[in-house]
Amino acid sequence: MRGAEAEKLVHRSLLFSSPFSEVVANGERFNRLTVNGKPGTFRSLRLIQRSMPKISHKAGAMPASPIRKLVPYADKAKKEGKKIFHLNIGQPDIETPEVMLNAIKNSNIRVIEYTHSAGTESYRKKLAAYYQRFNMPVNVEDVMITTGGSEAIEIAMMTCFNPGDEIIIPEPFYANYNGFSCAADLVIKPIRSYIETGFALPPIAEFEKMITPKTKGIMICNPGNPTGYLYTREELEALKEIVKKYDLFLLSDEVYREFCYDNKQYVSVMHLSGIDNNIVLLDSISKRYSACGARIGALISKNKEVMAGALKFAQARLSPPTFGQVGAEAALETPQSYFDAVTKEYTARRNFVIESLNKMEGVFCPKPSGAFYCIARLPIDNADIFCQWLLESFNHNGQTVMLAPATGFYSTPGAGINEVRIAYVLNLTDLANAMSCLEAALKVYPGRTIAKTETVAEVK
Amino acid sequence: MRGAEAEKLVHRSLLFSSPFSEVVANGERFNRLTVNGKPGTFRSLRLIQRSMPKISHKAGAMPASPIRKLVPYADKAKKEGKKIFHLNIGQPDIETPEVMLNAIKNSNIRVIEYTHSAGTESYRKKLAAYYQRFNMPVNVEDVMITTGGSEAIEIAMMTCFNPGDEIIIPEPFYANYNGFSCAADLVIKPIRSYIETGFALPPIAEFEKMITPKTKGIMICNPGNPTGYLYTREELEALKEIVKKYDLFLLSDEVYREFCYDNKQYVSVMHLSGIDNNIVLLDSISKRYSACGARIGALISKNKEVMAGALKFAQARLSPPTFGQVGAEAALETPQSYFDAVTKEYTARRNFVIESLNKMEGVFCPKPSGAFYCIARLPIDNADIFCQWLLESFNHNGQTVMLAPATGFYSTPGAGINEVRIAYVLNLTDLANAMSCLEAALKVYPGRTIAKTETVAEVK
Repeated sequence: MRGAEAEKLVHRSLLFSSPFSEVVANGERFNRLTVNGKPGTFRSLRLIQRSMPKISHKAGAMPASPIRKLVPYADKAKKEGKKIFHLNIGQPDIETPEVMLNAIKNSNIRVIEYTHSAGTESYRKKLAAYYQRFNMPVNVEDVMITTGGSEAIEIAMMTCFNPGDEIIIPEPFYANYNGFSCAADLVIKPIRSYIETGFALPPIAEFEKMITPKTKGIMICNPGNPTGYLYTREELEALKEIVKKYDLFLLSDEVYREFCYDNKQYVSVMHLSGIDNNIVLLDSISKRYSACGARIGALISKNKEVMAGALKFAQARLSPPTFGQVGAEAALETPQSYFDAVTKEYTARRNFVIESLNKMEGVFCPKPSGAFYCIARLPIDNADIFCQWLLESFNHNGQTVMLAPATGFYSTPGAGINEVRIAYVLNLTDLANAMSCLEAALKVYPGRTIAKTETVAEVK
Repeated sequence: MRGAEAEKLVHRSLLFSSPFSEVVANGERFNRLTVNGKPGTFRSLRLIQRSMPKISHKAGAMPASPIRKLVPYADKAKKEGKKIFHLNIGQPDIETPEVMLNAIKNSNIRVIEYTHSAGTESYRKKLAAYYQRFNMPVNVEDVMITTGGSEAIEIAMMTCFNPGDEIIIPEPFYANYNGFSCAADLVIKPIRSYIETGFALPPIAEFEKMITPKTKGIMICNPGNPTGYLYTREELEALKEIVKKYDLFLLSDEVYREFCYDNKQYVSVMHLSGIDNNIVLLDSISKRYSACGARIGALISKNKEVMAGALKFAQARLSPPTFGQVGAEAALETPQSYFDAVTKEYTARRNFVIESLNKMEGVFCPKPSGAFYCIARLPIDNADIFCQWLLESFNHNGQTVMLAPATGFYSTPGAGINEVRIAYVLNLTDLANAMSCLEAALKVYPGRTIAKTETVAEVK
C-alpha cells in the first residue's frame, strides 16, 4: 500500500498545513520527507512503520522540576555515606499542629466519600471566616477548595487564559508556574527583579512596556517564593492601577501569609479596592500548618464568571481529598501560640542564615521579610555546576549541603547564574553545620570567581 | 486616546488573524466591529471599556457535570420533606475496609510531608505486586500514583495527545471524559454502542471507518461506566489489532476490576501482548475500597516516554495526598472475604434491579456483568425532563428517586434521549423502595410514550 492508494486516504491539506512531522494513512505512519529543509511532495514521502506512538509536544516541552533534578546526585552522595543538609526544598521540619493530626486520627469516617467538588461546606464557611480575620472581604461563595495550591494555580490559569495569552510575572518566580503555564499553553513574560533591591517589585513603567494585545494577566507571589520579598502597600497599589488600566487578571499566590517577620504588615490583593473582578487569590495550607502532603489549597475570587468556570474544572476531577479537608478544617483552630513559636523560630533561622551568608567572602544576600527562602549571590561561575559539585565532589567532615540553583527560577536565559535559593527549613544546629559546609565549599570550589585574597567590600 | 494613537499600539496582523473578538490597545479594550458580518477596518473599531476581564473560551466550553446538574432540584425536594433515593451517582454505601481506615488513624505522622511526585516507593512496589496477582505484567517503574483516577486520565491525555488530536471512545461513556478532553483540547470521536446488544464493543470495521490522520488513540472503560458491560477477550484482541495497525494509544479505564459478576473473566489491556508501548492503564482505588474521597489513583504504562512525560506533569503538582497513600497501601491487605461479600451484595442488587426494571411496562434493561451501573430504556419522551420531573413534581408516599439522564453519557446529539443510568449503590431495601417509586412514576409521567394498555412485548 503506497503511492496512489495511500494518497486517497490522506487529506493533502492536512498534510501540508499540519505542524506535525508525521501523518497516518491507512494504518501506516509516514514521516514527512524534507528536501533541502522544505517539505517534499506527498509522492516523495518516505514510508516508516513506527513501533510506538509518540507522546505529545506538550509532554516533551514540560519542564522537569529544576529543584528535583539534582536528586539523583543527592541519592548517590547519601549512598556513599555523606550527610546532606537539605536547603533545596520548601519542606519545613516544623510539626503539623496537633489539632489537625488529631482530627484525622479521631474522625469517625466509615465510608471515605467524595465531598462537594468545591470542598465541604463546613470547611468553606470556616475558611471564609479565616480570611475575614485578615480583613479580607471573602465570603463562602468566593471560595473553592482545591487539591493543593498547585491545583488552584492550574485551574486559575485554565479558567482565566486562552492558549497563547500572555501573563507577566516578576522573576525570579516559583518554578512550577512554568509547568502549569505549559500545560495551559499560556506564555509567561518575565519581568526582572534584582537582588540589589532585595527583589522589590520592578517599576510599573517596566510592566507597562511589556503589555501587548495578548497580555491578559499579572501574577505575583507574596510573600515571595523564592525571594522572601514582602510587597508593600504602595507596590500593590501600583499593580492595582495597571491591572485596572489594562483590564487584566491579577493572580496572587499568598501561601506564605503567616510567615512575615519584623512586624512588617502583610498586604493582600484582597485588600485592594475597586478591582474585585480582576483578582484571583491562590492559597494553600501546606506551609501554614506544615501540611504539604495534605494537598489542600483554595482558589478565591469575587468574580462570579471565574468561580463558575473554575467549578466546572473542579467537577471533572470530582473532589479534593476528604482527610485533607477534615484536617484543614480542624487546623483553623490552631492556637496563636503555634504561629508565634513558628515565627520566632523562622526569624531566628533567617537572621542566622542571612548573617552567616553575608559574612562569607564574596557572598551577598538581601534580608527577606517573609516566607522561608532567600536568594544569595555567590562568588561562583555557575550555580547549576556548583550545586551538583557540592553533592558529587565535595564534603566537609563527611557533610555537604544541597541548594537550589536560582537559574531554575528565572525565565531570562543566563539570569541567576551565580545565585542560589536557600530554604531555611532546618533547625539552627543543622543550619550552622550547613553554613559551615557552604563556607568551606566556596573556598575550594574550582569555579570560584574571586581570588582568595580579595576583600568582600567590592562585591557587597 | 483613539485613532492613530491607538493604532500605533496594536499589532494589525494580530488584530485580524486573532480568533478573539477583542483587542487591547493602550489599556482600553476594543470589541471588533463587524459590518454586515465582516470585520471592519481598524479605524472603525468601537471602543468599549469593559468592567472586568473575560474568562477563557475553555472555561466557557467546559461541560458542567451532567450528573450534578440536577442537584439544585434534589436540594429543593429535600427541603420540601421528600425522601430521595440516590441512584444517580457512583458513590457506594459499602464501608471502606477497616484495615485502610485503621492505617490512617494509627499513622504516627508528625509532619504531613510531600511524598515523591510519583507516589511513595513502598506503595508503588506493593501496587505493582497487586497487578501481578491479576497476571498483569506491571513493574514498579511502570506505576505512577495519581490524585484519583481523574488525574490519571487528565495526565494521560496531556501526555499522549496534542491539541486537536482525535480519540475514539465507544459511547455512552463516563461523562467526565468530556471535561478532561476539553481541558486537553482533545477531540472525542464517539462510536456508538447500543442497548440492544448490551453495549458490546462496536464492530472493529466501525472503528476503522473513523480513523483519520488526526486519530491518535482509543479509550475504553472496562468494566464499563455507565454501561456495566464487561469486554470479552475477543473484543480486546480486536481492539489490539486496530491499535497496532494504526499505531494508536489505547487508554483503558479499569477502576471497576473487582466488580465482575457471574464468574465472568476480567480481561485487562495489560493482558494483551505485543502492544506494550501503546497501552496506558488508568486506575483508582475509589470503587475498589469504597474510598472515593481518598483521591488515589494510578497511571500505568510500559512506555518509557509516556512515564517520563507524565512524571513532569506530576512534578508540577508536587505529590498525591499523603494520608490517601497511607490508606491505599494498607488497603492492599484487605482480605478476600471483603471482596467476596461485596461481590455477593452487588450481584444481589444487580439481579433485583434488572429484574424489577424489565418487569415494568415498556422498560428494557440489559443485564450487565460488571461495575455497579446499568442503563435502562424507559417509555418516556425525554430523560432530562423526566429526571427533573421526578424531583420537582412527583412523589410516591413522600419518596422519589434520583436518576442520571443517559444523554449526558452520549456525545451524539439525541442519543440516549429515553435512557437513564442507574447506579445500584444502595441496600436492597432502599432499592426496592426506589424501584417502586420509578414504577409508579412511569405510570403517571405526562411524557409517557406508550398507552397504558399497551403490552411490553413490542418494546423489548
